[in-house]
Amino acid sequence: MNRINKSERIGTIIKILTENPQKIFTLNTFGDLFECAKSTLSEDIDIVKNIFKKFDLGSIETVAGAAGGVLYKPVMTKEQIKNFCEELCQRINQTDRMIPGGYIYLNDLIYSPELSYSMGKALASFFQDQDFDYVVTIETKGIPLALMTARVLNKPLVVVRKEGKLTDGTAIHMNYLTGSSKRIQTMSLAKRALPEGSKVIFIDDFMKAGGTAKGIMDLMKEFECEAVGVGVLMATKEPEEKLVEEYATLLVLEKVDEGKKEIIVKPFLKTAF
Amino acid sequence: MNRINKSERIGTIIKILTENPQKIFTLNTFGDLFECAKSTLSEDIDIVKNIFKKFDLGSIETVAGAAGGVLYKPVMTKEQIKNFCEELCQRINQTDRMIPGGYIYLNDLIYSPELSYSMGKALASFFQDQDFDYVVTIETKGIPLALMTARVLNKPLVVVRKEGKLTDGTAIHMNYLTGSSKRIQTMSLAKRALPEGSKVIFIDDFMKAGGTAKGIMDLMKEFECEAVGVGVLMATKEPEEKLVEEYATLLVLEKVDEGKKEIIVKPFLKTAF
Repeated sequence: MNRINKSERIGTIIKILTENPQKIFTLNTFGDLFECAKSTLSEDIDIVKNIFKKFDLGSIETVAGAAGGVLYKPVMTKEQIKNFCEELCQRINQTDRMIPGGYIYLNDLIYSPELSYSMGKALASFFQDQDFDYVVTIETKGIPLALMTARVLNKPLVVVRKEGKLTDGTAIHMNYLTGSSKRIQTMSLAKRALPEGSKVIFIDDFMKAGGTAKGIMDLMKEFECEAVGVGVLMATKEPEEKLVEEYATLLVLEKVDEGKKEIIVKPFLKTAF
Repeated sequence: MNRINKSERIGTIIKILTENPQKIFTLNTFGDLFECAKSTLSEDIDIVKNIFKKFDLGSIETVAGAAGGVLYKPVMTKEQIKNFCEELCQRINQTDRMIPGGYIYLNDLIYSPELSYSMGKALASFFQDQDFDYVVTIETKGIPLALMTARVLNKPLVVVRKEGKLTDGTAIHMNYLTGSSKRIQTMSLAKRALPEGSKVIFIDDFMKAGGTAKGIMDLMKEFECEAVGVGVLMATKEPEEKLVEEYATLLVLEKVDEGKKEIIVKPFLKTAF
């Protein structure tokens, strides 16, 4: 291989870090790739750090010690999250998204790979510095958001099913009550999906009274695990008191008025800060 | 903002392109960001192209014309796909993955954000130059792979449900027969999920006889749409004749022997090239 110059080293480092969020790369990895000295690489990393800072592209952090190295955290600034959520609201607050029964059609947004990645990045910003092992969600509509949140935080995803499946092997089934309509639902998770003692965060697309989130917390106890965080794309304003104490949300659904054909969804950050 | 030097421009361009696969960025976008001349940027883009080529990081392509610009295609080389699939097989061909009934436990792999992204990249390589508008999948286990494939190809994802949901609004329901066990199943898709005349590719985690893929193709006809491609993570060797004529697969399941406790999964590319 020809000699590799500074721009090439920096470009390659950025490509690799960007495509592997929250994964630590040792200087040796890059040293072997470029056949260059560690001192040269340290300078390169400093430049990379500055680039990310200058253009608000997330943060590059250095981890000291034997298992140390450099990693990319795709954090968004509060301003970026707010702008993104406002953009989302503009797309959501449209009469033609109204579905009989007071529901809002969101499939095109939550299944968009570009948007779900940004949603994941925004939501992950709240859990960036929290200590946990898995991201948990329940099928179906929360999966894209949960997968992208997990990708950004570099944690494995665990998907709880609404009924048992042959391909899960031995599983724990649990009945629970939905928070608003008090219907009985079932959730099921393969025994081997979560090792005992794990800490998890629960990510979903929507929260009304919080019955599902509460159910997941109870299911985690059956696995001798603990849910240490809850994050959703959208939570309803009412009931204000949810069945879970704390949760992060990007959007707040204030009102769906079928008669007036009005949907009012607002960014949470607008009201919170 | 201080003057921006070459390494900074190249690093930022790579960060933005990498995080937005298959999305065209005009030179003007970068020109405004860096406040520099187009000729300077053209040189930068050439350097970026060379970096990606030199280190097999995917390809950077320039699109000419008024809507032209530069974009990142996360293609993998055949060698990279083969190596990745061999790695997957090593992790799959383990006795403790066996589930009663001849199933294989794969949840930890297909729900891993890192692996599903690589699976998506590998599978997307087969559809890179095909003309289509949407990636379609059916809940649940195919969603991560389909979402990542859609992300890499920069196409919207459409998720078919196994039963109708209130939040879908008006939907088309269709009954179909599974290919192997001839059971009746239902699939349901919101009317507004797909505009008439769209071309789609169908992505799923597993294919045995191809009944689901065939069902999706029939459902597409109900939407006046056309499925122009099928891609799966794993297809069984038997039956060799599937209900769909053509499909791409990353892995081939040759045998699950419950008695001998043996799972044999091989990379497709090994046999194909």
